[in-house]
Amino acid sequence: MVDILHRIGAETPTPETSYDALTTVDGLARWWTEKTTGDAGLGGTVEFRFPDGGFVVEVVEAVPQQRVVWRVVDGPEEWVGTTIEWDLRQDGDFTIVLFAHRGWREPVEFMHHCSTKWATFLVSLKALVEGGDAAPSPRDVKIDNWN
Amino acid sequence: MVDILHRIGAETPTPETSYDALTTVDGLARWWTEKTTGDAGLGGTVEFRFPDGGFVVEVVEAVPQQRVVWRVVDGPEEWVGTTIEWDLRQDGDFTIVLFAHRGWREPVEFMHHCSTKWATFLVSLKALVEGGDAAPSPRDVKIDNWN
Repeated sequence: MVDILHRIGAETPTPETSYDALTTVDGLARWWTEKTTGDAGLGGTVEFRFPDGGFVVEVVEAVPQQRVVWRVVDGPEEWVGTTIEWDLRQDGDFTIVLFAHRGWREPVEFMHHCSTKWATFLVSLKALVEGGDAAPSPRDVKIDNWN
Repeated sequence: MVDILHRIGAETPTPETSYDALTTVDGLARWWTEKTTGDAGLGGTVEFRFPDGGFVVEVVEAVPQQRVVWRVVDGPEEWVGTTIEWDLRQDGDFTIVLFAHRGWREPVEFMHHCSTKWATFLVSLKALVEGGDAAPSPRDVKIDNWN
């Protein structure tokens, strides 16, 4: 089992904006993919659509201002059964977001791709929280021949 | 032991430009850090300096157009003894770069940071190879309160 790990810090006085960006459909649509539907609160199911496919997650943990965990229930077979964890904390002027996409069975080339792509979306999340220009799909940063 | 994995694809007809960007001091200075010195060829030692520190690597493998491996010999203690691998191949109009920073002893928060930061530098490398605007330090993309 191998994990994708990332860290961003968004300059903002509390974790509230970051938490809202992770637990509302409108927030998610503004940094990850414009085609987000469902219920992003605890116990809800969220569908994320991209030009070439998408993912469905269940929200299995949601601790306000602190932590969100999703379990992937549909999407590419490498993703199904994995978990995506978001840990938030305030450190001075920054909300620190620790990200982990855990439970990949093998470090396949698609995992390399997703690791880089997650980083670009986390930079998009940072931009959103800071009031700058986020880049959700289909306006996302292209990294390779897959997207 | 845990690894950082990434993948980019640069639109360019052969791996030559990417390989040069990894095995020459001038190339490295144009996408990673402007303060790059040393000898980036096989058997050489390269120093990468940033405002808050830096790294020294030995080039332990260099197979033209295909593969480069560095061993980290100085820098943050978490980095010393790790290896950084670059595998290149041509896939149609793209040079695919598979990146792995292997041998982290623990998935510490600094590893999360470095994973995200590597992604932004790999996007910088892609931009350089494609003739666009790369972002080497100190003009690098800031991701959090550490850099």
